[in-house]
Amino acid sequence: MIETYIHEKGKIIETKLEDYLNHYREVPDRLYQSMKYSLMAGGKRLRPILVLATVEACDKPEELAYPLACAIEMIHTYSLIHDDLPCMDDDDYRRGKLTNHKKFDEATAVLAGDALLTEAFTLMSKGVRAAKLSFDDSLAIIEETAKHAGAFGMIGGQMDDLLSEDKQITVEELEAIHRRKTGDLIAFSVRTGARIGGASEEALTSLTQFAYRLGLAFQIQDDILDIIGDPELIGKPVGSDQENLKSTYPSLLGLEESQQLLARLTYTAKEELLKTTELNPQRLLDIADYLLTRKR
Amino acid sequence: MIETYIHEKGKIIETKLEDYLNHYREVPDRLYQSMKYSLMAGGKRLRPILVLATVEACDKPEELAYPLACAIEMIHTYSLIHDDLPCMDDDDYRRGKLTNHKKFDEATAVLAGDALLTEAFTLMSKGVRAAKLSFDDSLAIIEETAKHAGAFGMIGGQMDDLLSEDKQITVEELEAIHRRKTGDLIAFSVRTGARIGGASEEALTSLTQFAYRLGLAFQIQDDILDIIGDPELIGKPVGSDQENLKSTYPSLLGLEESQQLLARLTYTAKEELLKTTELNPQRLLDIADYLLTRKR
Repeated sequence: MIETYIHEKGKIIETKLEDYLNHYREVPDRLYQSMKYSLMAGGKRLRPILVLATVEACDKPEELAYPLACAIEMIHTYSLIHDDLPCMDDDDYRRGKLTNHKKFDEATAVLAGDALLTEAFTLMSKGVRAAKLSFDDSLAIIEETAKHAGAFGMIGGQMDDLLSEDKQITVEELEAIHRRKTGDLIAFSVRTGARIGGASEEALTSLTQFAYRLGLAFQIQDDILDIIGDPELIGKPVGSDQENLKSTYPSLLGLEESQQLLARLTYTAKEELLKTTELNPQRLLDIADYLLTRKR
Repeated sequence: MIETYIHEKGKIIETKLEDYLNHYREVPDRLYQSMKYSLMAGGKRLRPILVLATVEACDKPEELAYPLACAIEMIHTYSLIHDDLPCMDDDDYRRGKLTNHKKFDEATAVLAGDALLTEAFTLMSKGVRAAKLSFDDSLAIIEETAKHAGAFGMIGGQMDDLLSEDKQITVEELEAIHRRKTGDLIAFSVRTGARIGGASEEALTSLTQFAYRLGLAFQIQDDILDIIGDPELIGKPVGSDQENLKSTYPSLLGLEESQQLLARLTYTAKEELLKTTELNPQRLLDIADYLLTRKR
């Protein structure tokens, strides 16, 4: 059962994140508490789980991947803390809990985000050793982190997202934003798993295509849940996108067409994965199906 | 003449920074402009110059060190952008120019800082290749970046600095703040130069001790210039620390004792450097003397 797998791997990731956080007990307590608050605030742990599932698809033991998987979750968490700031999306709640700057204050939230991003590279460095990667693969992972999480990737996507506020944008522009804002880190998760698993260039390409489609489907589902989701399950009120006049897939395409696009993207994502015979892809296929029907 | 050296090396660093910035022309223009604005806003370029001078002290060609030196300047610049934010030190001017969030806006400033930090690791990664470092030295540099710029280092120092506002603190507490907030990145600059130069553990230790003393002296001089400096030269009004009730060396020790401490620290910094016979330290000694008498 994929639900069981996701639940169990999520627990493992949380245990590992707590272990790594313990190294930071000696930093200023407010900073430590703030980093811990957001990192341990729940969430689906999708990105680290994708790392583990990809390593499994390459028939390698997932234990090799724990530090790198956790490093990616730290980068994801830092991006949420900064995106929630008053000067950005100005959100008071995330996953049913106060956002970091509401729980602490803005300065602490900026610094906790900065620290999680910086310390992710400490963990990356430990991670490439733990995974016994070659020098070239190790540097490739550090470079890809920056590429996917940096100005060309996640940060650039957030910048364009902010610039598109209160503006009419096209579906292509919306896709270009989400490809970077969400897709890049999801693709990086899968690519990191692939490198740990020793995948060929061909398999790496298939996995990357799979991940970008999955990432886009994930974002469309987010947009849909903001309309028809259960506020209890998604941890925030529904209708906030519409209230904030945000361009979303349903606002540009309508709800029904968005649901069709979601299903189509999930299907083509899975197809990409089956293009290579090198992988053992069942878990990743199941994750794609699971995300298609997620309620939170 | 050390002034000539500093001027010339500063120019080289600026040319290199512009080269690296050119890679970012394709990112969202507002993000690119904002990164460029702060990175090219002048400044003493002390940290990258220390990298180059340390490589020279190890009798290796400085060209090896350009990417890593520039990466450290990017980290320094990101920290200034975030420190200037309204929720932090709330500064409108730096080096006589509008701060990043005043020139652009807060969201852009947060993202430009995030991007400079993230992209510094891209450049680190290129840098360890350019410097032909071993796998172990390369990972050590990535780990040390995070250690000096992260929660244990620069970010932790800024957190404690914010927490000490409007509070009476001791000279020891002030030193502990500056050791992390300023000293760590200066020490990291010298340590990076030493690794590129292939320095022994003994020389690395001497250089590190030199750098922490130099970093503290640098901070004390900053505090002194805020009282007796020329506003034209330092690019901001004098007396702002006193106005903001900030704990500084002069406020805790008095001006005269601070000046004596500055001279003593510079002297012991230089002594540290002379403890090893392995180095060719003249340039670093000259830089220490130069900083002692700087007017900006």
